[in-house]
Order: sequence, then C-alpha cells, then structure tokens
Amino acid sequence: MKARQAEIVAAIDACFAESLGNWQQVPVVDAMRHALRGGKNLRAFLAMESAALCGIPDVQSVWPAAAIEAMHAYSLVHDDLPCMDDDALRRGQPTVHVKWDEATAVLAGDALHSLAFELASAPQGSADPDVRATLAHTLAQAAGGQGMVLGQALDIAAESAARPLTLDEITHLQAGKTGALITWAALVGPRMARADEAPLRRYAEALGLAFQIQDDVIDVTGDVAAAGKAVGKDAAAGKATFVSLLGLDGAKRRADTLVTQACDALSVYGGKAQSLQQLARFVIARAT
Amino acid sequence: MKARQAEIVAAIDACFAESLGNWQQVPVVDAMRHALRGGKNLRAFLAMESAALCGIPDVQSVWPAAAIEAMHAYSLVHDDLPCMDDDALRRGQPTVHVKWDEATAVLAGDALHSLAFELASAPQGSADPDVRATLAHTLAQAAGGQGMVLGQALDIAAESAARPLTLDEITHLQAGKTGALITWAALVGPRMARADEAPLRRYAEALGLAFQIQDDVIDVTGDVAAAGKAVGKDAAAGKATFVSLLGLDGAKRRADTLVTQACDALSVYGGKAQSLQQLARFVIARAT
Repeated sequence: MKARQAEIVAAIDACFAESLGNWQQVPVVDAMRHALRGGKNLRAFLAMESAALCGIPDVQSVWPAAAIEAMHAYSLVHDDLPCMDDDALRRGQPTVHVKWDEATAVLAGDALHSLAFELASAPQGSADPDVRATLAHTLAQAAGGQGMVLGQALDIAAESAARPLTLDEITHLQAGKTGALITWAALVGPRMARADEAPLRRYAEALGLAFQIQDDVIDVTGDVAAAGKAVGKDAAAGKATFVSLLGLDGAKRRADTLVTQACDALSVYGGKAQSLQQLARFVIARAT
Repeated sequence: MKARQAEIVAAIDACFAESLGNWQQVPVVDAMRHALRGGKNLRAFLAMESAALCGIPDVQSVWPAAAIEAMHAYSLVHDDLPCMDDDALRRGQPTVHVKWDEATAVLAGDALHSLAFELASAPQGSADPDVRATLAHTLAQAAGGQGMVLGQALDIAAESAARPLTLDEITHLQAGKTGALITWAALVGPRMARADEAPLRRYAEALGLAFQIQDDVIDVTGDVAAAGKAVGKDAAAGKATFVSLLGLDGAKRRADTLVTQACDALSVYGGKAQSLQQLARFVIARAT
C-alpha cells in the first residue's frame, strides 16, 4: 500500500503541475500549491483504487482524483479562516491566511474550488462526455449546500445550539461534512466505468463515518506534532462528538465495526479490493 | 427589452426555486437566496438571448443562465467580505456578512459556487452530455485562477503596488475580473447549439470592457441610492481606473466605441441580434 500511495501522490502532483504550469503566477497560485501539499491524499487514493477496481487506468483516474484533492484543499483553506475555525496550523504547516493573508486565503480557496470542476470535467479523464458531465454534476452536489457545505453549516449552528447534538444529528452532520466527498471519491470507478455503484457506496458510507469517529478520537488522544493540526478543540469547546456521546472505547468499537462493514461490502470484488480494505483499516489506525 | 427581461428574471427565479426547494433550509440557504435577489441579471439575459439567437429554447437555456447568476452572486458575496472590499451594501440591501455573519457569507458563497456547476451541468439544460461537460469545464476556466479569481488577485495586488497600473494592465485585469464570466454567458448559445463562437466572442469581449469602463464611470459620477452599492471608493483609494487614465470624457468615448464594435460583431445575425445590441447600449447608459 505504501508503494501504491507514493505512485498516486506522484501522479496527482504531476497532474497539478500540468494544470497550473502555464498559469500566470500570482501569490494566489502559490497559496493554492501550498494548500495542495502535504496531505494524506486519502480521497485521491480512494478515487484511483476505486477506478482500478473497475478497470479504469491511472492515466485517466488521476484527473478526478486530483479534482477531489483540490476540492478537499479548498474546504480546508476556508475552514481554517479566522471567521470559521481560526486555525494557524494545517498539515504541519502554517495555514494560508497565516502565511499570506485572509484575502489570499479566500481567493486561493475559491480558485481551488473552480479547479476541482475543471479537473473533474477534463477531457483527459474520460473520452466519454457523459462521464465527464456526471462527474462534474455529482461533485457539485457532494460539495454544495446539501453536501459538504450543509455539514459545515450544521457544525457552526451546533456551536451556539441550546443543547448538544444527538448521535443521529452528528451522524447526519458528518455525512455532509466529510462523508459526501469521501463517497464521491469512492464512486469514481463505477461512474467512469458505468458499473454498479452499490458495493462501493456501502463501503464509502461506512468508511466516511469511521473516518469521522477516528477524527474525534484523534482530537482527544492525539498530539499536535503527530496530527499536524490543532487538537483538543472540540472538548475545550464543549461540543458533542462521537467520543463525548459513545465514550472513547465505545467510539473506537463503533469505528471498528464500521470498518468491518466497509470491508465486507467489497467482498463481491474478491482479492482485487484488498487495497481499499487495507485503506479502511488504515483510517482507524491513523494518528493524523 | 423590458418585457423580455421580466420573462428572464421570472424563469431564473423559478429555476432557483426548483433547485433549492427541497433542500434542508439552514441560514446558509437563506443567505444564498438573499444573495441571488435584486441583481440586474445581465449575465442571465446575455446567456438566454445568446441561446435564443442560436435556436435554443428558454426552458433549456435558463439552466446555464441560472448557473452564471449563481457564480456572479458567489463572487459578490466573497468580494464584499471585510478582508476583501469590506462593503456593507449590495443591490440596495445589506451584504451577507452584515445581515448574517462572516462565516455564513463564506459558506453561502461557497455553496453558490458549487450550485453554479450543478446548474451548468444539469440534464435539464441539455440532453447532449458533451454540451453539459463543455459548459461545466469552460465555466470552471472562466471562474478560476486564470479567469475571474486572477482578475481579483491582480486587483488586490494593484492596491499595494509601487506604481499605478497602466491601461494594458487594467484591461488584462478586467478581462479576468468581469470579462471572463460575461464572455462565458455570451457563448452559451453557440456552445449549446455547437455553432460558431466567433461573432459572440467578439461581441462579449468588447461588451465586457465597456461594462467595466462604465463601472468606473459610475464610481465617479454615481450616487449610492441609484447604484445600490458604495461609490467613490476607487478615487478615494487612489486606484488607477479607466477614468483616471483616460479622463471622464475619454472613458465615456472609449465605452461608446466598444459598444459600437460589439453591435457590429453581431451584424451577421441581422435583425435577430437586436436585443443583444440593445443590451450593449444599455450597459453604458446604466447608473447601477
């Protein structure tokens, strides 16, 4: 999995270099490159492994994979803004508004957001225009006001709510905030190959929830150096999390069950799904 | 032209109502509706008239027309943020961060941005997937780091530059900042009909520049009540504008020449292009 991950990171980097290479270089473009560096590239891995499972070659799937990383990077840049989570550290580096300024962070996020759609609909990704249109359309739905942005809006509303969120409410919030992009990434393969989406959708929905539970676990048990970002913020803010609702052991057990469900959902693919199953186990073992 | 404009505004409003109708209603969605209201809908008019010129019915062209209005609305919401232009008034109403707060303005802008791509690639717009993919792909290029965002970034850089911009530099800046979306709107027709883009591209490039010159004229001669937004800001900031470089009369003459060029570019369409030619004349007659 390490070797495959290095291969994917190299492919994504080359895709961004090609996309941004002949652009007019202004500070916003430097800030975009900064925001794209140093991540886990989990969503790109999901997209390219889902594509490989469906017989789509890397040279094509790298385009939607880069798209989902650009989308994720934009969401982090805007999330870190002073008026949002006000974070100074991300992926072990200063956030964009700290290294540059707020205006550059707003604009770099906006440009990454548009770039995501440029990459998702790129002719290099698929010769089939129906695939390109579907990738762009579903990406907009996953990122927008009923997907990721809805999750972020519910998260902000929870901070000033009269009572902490229930487990159902947090699950709904997270399905938007992190689940929607993770699911889009996992469905890249069947969408590009026009194959059955059901097994990868079940996998992604369980994985997305496990991912968020682990994020809450890291917020409690992690340290800044390992996580590369601020930790302990949710507990300090008195926010309901999977850990506050289920307890630390309960949250870990729930994540474990979800990962088993995610792996089982791919049994139809046999041994070919091994790396996606490994990825699911990595998600709850990670410290960052 | 008044009647047609009313028809287009009604169609766009219905399209947004359909798109946002069954969404979970959170404050961010209220803020999106607020940001979409009260504009001139100039870009929607351009898109739908360009489409009509190419034989595309309103029931289809309203989708890309709504897309470009969503994109324009997002850019205004983010442009008005305290870290950007810091404006409290827009379209005669309080800006989103004033009526709600900064976080809601960032998220509402982000959701409008994604919505633009959802609408541009909507199956209701075209049954031809190649058209949907092309509309999404070109919209991303027009809005992104080599289009609108580049223009905004150059505009911010100009504020702290050692010398004022030259006429060529301002023209380049404006081609991104306002020109790219105006051109995209004007090309909706030939892109949907797979017709020759050249006449409408020449029209749009002249019109976009005339539009920006008139914006600079309004900033000097307009009043807040008529404009529905702050005026006199550029002069107060000592920024180079078309008016500071060409003089007020020189700027008006230049806009006039550009509008004549824009109208001439459509002569190939004969009388059918009348409303787009009227629109061009309106652009330099407007006070808002």
